Amino acid sequence: MLVNPHGKEKKLKPLLLAGKELEEEKKRAATLKKINITSREAGDLIMMGIGGFTPLDGFMGYEDWKDVCSDYRMIDGTFWPIPVTVSTDEDVKAGDEIALYSEEYGEIMATMKVKDVYKIDKEYECKEIYRTTDAAEHPGVKMVMAQASKNLAGPVKVLSQGTFPSEYLGIYLTPFESRKLFVEKGWSTVAAFQTRNPMHRSHEYLCKIAIETCDGVFIHMLLGKLKPGDIPSDVRQQAIDVLTEKYFVNNTIVIGGYPLDMRYAGPREALLHALFRQNYGCSHLIVGRDHAGVGDFYGPFDAQKIFDEIPKDALETKPLKIDWTFWCHKCDGMASMKTCPHGKEDRLILSGTKLRKMLSEGEDVSDKFSRPEVLAILRKYYEGLTEKVEIKTHKYSEGA
Amino acid sequence: MLVNPHGKEKKLKPLLLAGKELEEEKKRAATLKKINITSREAGDLIMMGIGGFTPLDGFMGYEDWKDVCSDYRMIDGTFWPIPVTVSTDEDVKAGDEIALYSEEYGEIMATMKVKDVYKIDKEYECKEIYRTTDAAEHPGVKMVMAQASKNLAGPVKVLSQGTFPSEYLGIYLTPFESRKLFVEKGWSTVAAFQTRNPMHRSHEYLCKIAIETCDGVFIHMLLGKLKPGDIPSDVRQQAIDVLTEKYFVNNTIVIGGYPLDMRYAGPREALLHALFRQNYGCSHLIVGRDHAGVGDFYGPFDAQKIFDEIPKDALETKPLKIDWTFWCHKCDGMASMKTCPHGKEDRLILSGTKLRKMLSEGEDVSDKFSRPEVLAILRKYYEGLTEKVEIKTHKYSEGA
Repeated sequence: MLVNPHGKEKKLKPLLLAGKELEEEKKRAATLKKINITSREAGDLIMMGIGGFTPLDGFMGYEDWKDVCSDYRMIDGTFWPIPVTVSTDEDVKAGDEIALYSEEYGEIMATMKVKDVYKIDKEYECKEIYRTTDAAEHPGVKMVMAQASKNLAGPVKVLSQGTFPSEYLGIYLTPFESRKLFVEKGWSTVAAFQTRNPMHRSHEYLCKIAIETCDGVFIHMLLGKLKPGDIPSDVRQQAIDVLTEKYFVNNTIVIGGYPLDMRYAGPREALLHALFRQNYGCSHLIVGRDHAGVGDFYGPFDAQKIFDEIPKDALETKPLKIDWTFWCHKCDGMASMKTCPHGKEDRLILSGTKLRKMLSEGEDVSDKFSRPEVLAILRKYYEGLTEKVEIKTHKYSEGA
Repeated sequence: MLVNPHGKEKKLKPLLLAGKELEEEKKRAATLKKINITSREAGDLIMMGIGGFTPLDGFMGYEDWKDVCSDYRMIDGTFWPIPVTVSTDEDVKAGDEIALYSEEYGEIMATMKVKDVYKIDKEYECKEIYRTTDAAEHPGVKMVMAQASKNLAGPVKVLSQGTFPSEYLGIYLTPFESRKLFVEKGWSTVAAFQTRNPMHRSHEYLCKIAIETCDGVFIHMLLGKLKPGDIPSDVRQQAIDVLTEKYFVNNTIVIGGYPLDMRYAGPREALLHALFRQNYGCSHLIVGRDHAGVGDFYGPFDAQKIFDEIPKDALETKPLKIDWTFWCHKCDGMASMKTCPHGKEDRLILSGTKLRKMLSEGEDVSDKFSRPEVLAILRKYYEGLTEKVEIKTHKYSEGA
């Protein structure tokens, strides 16, 4: 038995229309006022479409937004850690029906019945959700501060999944699909491994600890937008494919992708990661060091600690907290700060920045840090990059 | 918060007397009829004395014995997987008060109010509990078949812990003491690692997986009787001490010992191991391959599967099931059948018998199999052994 979907009804609530209903709503949408949405908003819509954001039925209103910021819950009591909102500068009023249009996908993604138009204190949202208002250095804060002047609240009907199903065929999975796969494999305990990066040996170790103790691991990649300097999803996918093919037992993993953009909200995003993994059918979320973090905005284990601060029944999906992992020469194996008693000098630790530099400059990287097959793919990617300046100067840190 | 002690009252129930009450009961005991007890019975008594067998208040009667054999529970509904009985050929009747005397410790271990004297079908007990009646090859069955003709039922007052507190100073712990240590360390999830052997890298790996995901590990050694050919507890303890000192982070483990003899009942004993670990304060019991097994009497994962066959609320302590573990050259690390996709030829697997042969004949053993510091201790022990014939011919397998 897998965990229940999030929310009181314990049932996936996909907002994506299909068949005749979809065709008719598409026709109607073409007649409605078009409101442009951002990449993050489109990702959130698609997630609502496929049931990943169950039990949401649309973008949040002011009261929900406020309680989510202050109390991690919506006004009906449903646990929710991050506002899911859409904004515009256009002239929209409560009662309007509008079409949410994505320039990126060149299509109307959803229709929306506007129930309310409201202003928010963006700095307040950033302080609560991101723990900082530094728009220059924090990409999530930058996104919030760049939002339009008014938020729109109301239920949506989702019309499209954008290019995800075609572009990521076999990788992009809906919660229905992942649950079906888990059930077919006879799994009941499934640990989700959140990733937006290629997997090195430390990530492999995290997954393998989970496999040793759960039925299987869901390697779940973010397919939406990242910050500059992150590895593009196709390269990451190749690297993960070769790693799992050569170093994992086939029936212990499922690889999938989801359509959200990163918010880099650290602890709050870790909670959101657990929440939607519950919808995908995962009993656990692996939470390592600086989960969903960026720069030095969060303490390395803030994203683990926050799970102790929410009500016990907030989520069925539980964190699988694992300390900072690395190869240790004296341990002669992978280890973490909790299992290795040796010193710094015995441990092989490379920052993302250092690794990128080594790879782009053709330096040898130890196979204790990353599998040779993975390194070969990354090396090829970096060698092909022309804008090397960007790689060397960006200062965001690596994380899940 | 640690798990509750076993039983409805959720409170440790030590049957050991102390102070004046002990002195008086000792005097009274000297006037009672003496009944000799075996090593296993003495171990069970001491376990009742220190609360490790909470909520038992003495040796089981016929109805309890029968329901434990057939339904894993006593007549009051308390979950219990293995009969805890005492037997005699002496003339004892219901209503008698007797002194239970251990020749091994040269003292009266307890007094008992005999409530019932009954005969059991030993073959039935062996079939249910050990899944075999082979007294020649199964040391647990041999013990049952060698029991005296009548079982005695009734509550006990325990007068002594034998030589355990003095002989294993600092290692022998009562459930009160282990719980106190765990609380002092701020642990709430503690995985017990059951051992009757020195720890090689595969055992280290089991413990480290548990440490990565729990607050700490309780390395819990059997201090009672083993079968011929097993490593004596002092050598085992030295080997575990050097391993944990050199390869574990200090505040992640507690080492302790308990006074029972091995029964080698495989799955049923795994349940008993989980039950008394609950009394010791452990939330999990690591259950690897052939836990508490002997020879080929049990399937390698029978002791894991049985936890799925008992009622969900039977025990608070849950199994941490881990597959067969080993070093794999291609994985370049420790792995299990669940995490290593490679072939037999890449894996370093030594049987206990093979290892003993290599050590006693001075052959090199790989440091991928066992830490050099551990091997040095074992080598010394085997070199000192004169009865090499016994080592080479005994055929019991290695297990937890």
